[in-house]
Amino acid sequence: MTTIHDLPTPALLFDADALDHNLSTMAAARPGDSLRPHVKAHKCTALAAAQQAEGHRHFTCATPREVVGMAMAGVGDSLLLANETLDAARLAAMAAVQDRVDVIVAVDSAGTVAGAAAAGIRSVLIDVNIGLPRCGCPPDEAGRLADVARHAGLDVRGVMGYEGHLMMVTDHADQRAKVAAAVDLLLAAHQLVGGAIISSGGTGTYRAHDRVTEVQAGSYALMDTQYAQHGHPFRQACHVLGTVISVAAADAPARFAVADVGLKALGMDHGNPSIDGARVWFCSDEHVTFAADAAPLPALGDRVRVTPAHIDPTVAMHEHAWIVRGDEVIDRWPIDLRGW
Amino acid sequence: MTTIHDLPTPALLFDADALDHNLSTMAAARPGDSLRPHVKAHKCTALAAAQQAEGHRHFTCATPREVVGMAMAGVGDSLLLANETLDAARLAAMAAVQDRVDVIVAVDSAGTVAGAAAAGIRSVLIDVNIGLPRCGCPPDEAGRLADVARHAGLDVRGVMGYEGHLMMVTDHADQRAKVAAAVDLLLAAHQLVGGAIISSGGTGTYRAHDRVTEVQAGSYALMDTQYAQHGHPFRQACHVLGTVISVAAADAPARFAVADVGLKALGMDHGNPSIDGARVWFCSDEHVTFAADAAPLPALGDRVRVTPAHIDPTVAMHEHAWIVRGDEVIDRWPIDLRGW
Repeated sequence: MTTIHDLPTPALLFDADALDHNLSTMAAARPGDSLRPHVKAHKCTALAAAQQAEGHRHFTCATPREVVGMAMAGVGDSLLLANETLDAARLAAMAAVQDRVDVIVAVDSAGTVAGAAAAGIRSVLIDVNIGLPRCGCPPDEAGRLADVARHAGLDVRGVMGYEGHLMMVTDHADQRAKVAAAVDLLLAAHQLVGGAIISSGGTGTYRAHDRVTEVQAGSYALMDTQYAQHGHPFRQACHVLGTVISVAAADAPARFAVADVGLKALGMDHGNPSIDGARVWFCSDEHVTFAADAAPLPALGDRVRVTPAHIDPTVAMHEHAWIVRGDEVIDRWPIDLRGW
Repeated sequence: MTTIHDLPTPALLFDADALDHNLSTMAAARPGDSLRPHVKAHKCTALAAAQQAEGHRHFTCATPREVVGMAMAGVGDSLLLANETLDAARLAAMAAVQDRVDVIVAVDSAGTVAGAAAAGIRSVLIDVNIGLPRCGCPPDEAGRLADVARHAGLDVRGVMGYEGHLMMVTDHADQRAKVAAAVDLLLAAHQLVGGAIISSGGTGTYRAHDRVTEVQAGSYALMDTQYAQHGHPFRQACHVLGTVISVAAADAPARFAVADVGLKALGMDHGNPSIDGARVWFCSDEHVTFAADAAPLPALGDRVRVTPAHIDPTVAMHEHAWIVRGDEVIDRWPIDLRGW
């Protein structure tokens, strides 16, 4: 039996039971095509296949490489690039897989429409700004842009809009009201655009959506500590395993230990990671220095599970994930959708 | 001629002229073996070869993969793992390249000494804690640990100690005094240990060192915005190129643009990146949203140079770097020392 004690570290761990719980819980709440899982959260076709096994056939991607990688792996019947690109070579690469899978590309300007059409992309969604200052056209321009797209020969499949600014609103009633106002904008745009798809949302707001055709949640699969504070029914399923490589002497003025999980193995944009029963002092490129709370410090060679503050960028730093049940290692999944 | 307008984005850029300036400036200040350049800052054997061409033959590494990768590339006469590891397979991999290059491994405990000896490592440095709560034995235990190492058959080549907590001390006289106190600890340990090597320092403190045999600076090659504020004679040589993929309408209530350089392409532990002439609002996984200061917003498809707040982890997120002179692309270097 292989255990976590046999793994080279730092090692990305996916907890099989927590992952199963998360996937089945979401599939019960938003079954089948009412969820379009976002693969940017894990960049792993094996995990996407597990989501497909729960009944979801349509997937969301953030990069062309994610779209092409999913297509090559044969996972998903429909792949949405929920992002804009002007890269002719990457648009052509996505167009080249359209015979094996439905590919839909988001557009929010005449320029992105022209790029998609020139590359032979068949289907687009009109990306609408519903409050987050990022991509998306103004709602009242969506109809005009849909006309431009249709004139260019593109099949306009509907609209999408991402209310990322509302993911962390903690009061449920407040969040529901704000999401409703954002969805009002999206539905108004949809009135102008038409098409079967109204796509929105994420893990932070999936419970607040009852008027869209699909939700683009991704983080629910592995979960983030920040989402975990908001009362979601999902469990932390992702850690980075480290080895204790140095322990301060018992008579040292400050008692701390060091594990080999540094900021090159952790998404740091949400701050420092955490370790159960310990206080993290700081991260260096290849180290995390931490003190124990009440318990004694770990010993040299002990394994510690480090919980990243942000999962998406953490996963993208690793070549593969080890699937574990307790301390047993049961599989290894490549993080095969990395890069752009 | 290939220019930055031909590159897929996000694209890691190394500015050839700034890099040349940085390498020659440091080589003038600390020539030859008085500098042991740290490859963790760039993870690129081609850049290490450029440092070797400036006269530096000895290199510092943070991971076993960096050591083995440098050995396989044939760059450097001596490779120091300035870090502790208990990984028997990785220690063995480093031991396996000892016939082609001098390999020295840091140790700070009886456990790390035993691991190195068991794997057939020949040479070690005693890693001494000189004030940064991370790895390193107490200075007064260094002699005892050296005895343990020699008893295990290891060649003890000297001492190292990293005063990472002093890199950002802004007052030069204050920094010099604090570095002197840290080096006092290292020299006291060296008295107990012996050996030819006294290794310490980094880009933040290289000017404050006159009693060590070598300085382990790395960031000077590509430079960090944080170091740049401290009056160092080095230039920013690393950016991440992005393409503007969305621009808010001219009559929008808020005027902003979006480029495809997100937090999966940027080391974020020092905070948001910067863009000359613009204010960065926030980063998402694959986007940076920014407003223009006085100048007009860029147009769709324009290229923007994004300056990461921390270079080391940024470089580690990219598969290769494009070497540029102005807007011309003159070479591509693999970031071939990524991972562990």
